[in-house]
Amino acid sequence: MLTIALPKGALLKESIAYFQQVGLNFDALLEPDNRQLQVVSRDGVARALLVRAQDVPVYVQYGQAQLGIVGYDVLREKTPHVAQLADLGFGRCRLSVAVKATSPYRSARDLPPHCRVASKFVRCANAFFQELDVPVDIVPLYGSVELGPLTGMAEAIVDLVSTGRTLKENGLVELEQIFTSTAYLIAHPRSYRLNIAGLGHYVKCLEGYRNRMEGRASA
Amino acid sequence: MLTIALPKGALLKESIAYFQQVGLNFDALLEPDNRQLQVVSRDGVARALLVRAQDVPVYVQYGQAQLGIVGYDVLREKTPHVAQLADLGFGRCRLSVAVKATSPYRSARDLPPHCRVASKFVRCANAFFQELDVPVDIVPLYGSVELGPLTGMAEAIVDLVSTGRTLKENGLVELEQIFTSTAYLIAHPRSYRLNIAGLGHYVKCLEGYRNRMEGRASA
Repeated sequence: MLTIALPKGALLKESIAYFQQVGLNFDALLEPDNRQLQVVSRDGVARALLVRAQDVPVYVQYGQAQLGIVGYDVLREKTPHVAQLADLGFGRCRLSVAVKATSPYRSARDLPPHCRVASKFVRCANAFFQELDVPVDIVPLYGSVELGPLTGMAEAIVDLVSTGRTLKENGLVELEQIFTSTAYLIAHPRSYRLNIAGLGHYVKCLEGYRNRMEGRASA
Repeated sequence: MLTIALPKGALLKESIAYFQQVGLNFDALLEPDNRQLQVVSRDGVARALLVRAQDVPVYVQYGQAQLGIVGYDVLREKTPHVAQLADLGFGRCRLSVAVKATSPYRSARDLPPHCRVASKFVRCANAFFQELDVPVDIVPLYGSVELGPLTGMAEAIVDLVSTGRTLKENGLVELEQIFTSTAYLIAHPRSYRLNIAGLGHYVKCLEGYRNRMEGRASA
């Protein structure tokens, strides 16, 4: 049976809508009292696993799911061995460098050498500042990264920004974008090559749907 | 001002009750519609930061908070440079190895060499199996670790167990306990040595409170 790893959180609703276009109905996962982590589609041909966004590429890399949807930010940070089939366009946000609005810095290059930068994206942040040739000390955090500058622990943060509301509420301003992120369709490379569980059929249907959507958007 | 890092989630309520015993009232953090991540105690002498459990030792290690409460599991996994002042006794749970109830394994030593073990506690799990001399492949997950054996991705998991309900609901059984975990009071080592922000006074009061509690429990 085709197994699809779907991310909890911000991308879930649109991910379910996406698979609905090719007849796979997983909306049981959207019911408010849902506690199930695995559901079979209404027609019984596929199964969805509901997992943390960061775990989606793990299930796909190990072949426990043949397909998955995950943000590009996770792919950049974790660099899993998965096939990136398509940029789905939804869930758009950006990984950005931000500082206190009252700080004197106006670009990432202005940050003082060896200052502290709080981030959940340790690899991406390190790579960005290395490329920039500004040596910084990344403070790895799991949540509420905006507290870093507010408490004085860090001069700057590297975090995902979508509407910018959280930054604003915390008196922070965006200095620079590192990359933009959207939802990606990923596949287990070998399952995709060998067309396991009719994977090729679904990917083709999904591509057809996407092309129609893009056609409509640009018309 | 004395700053205290408090963990979101399971330990929060008892952590707030603990500091209430020495007159520091942070119960604004418990209000259902609370969105604040920093609150000042009602008497204005201390400040609490509400952060992810894994981030508590980060704030304390960097000295942004002089005190913090965090589960021993986090201290074991992250090995931060903080002073462990006291085992507070609440939030008791255990880090355990579990397998499917239908599996043939009855101890961690029975697991086949090079099998996969899913865990959020990569370091602790690795150390445990190394000590046991059973080479395993740890699959790092962020959440819903119980899905590992259910999907066939892993033979076993290493995860926190408190009531055992989640294991039971997912058809898993505990094989072995690695350690038990409770909430710990931690401090920034230098702030503690130098008695910054009246830290020593509070620690003494908290110790007095704990001793009275223990006296009562054993009476």
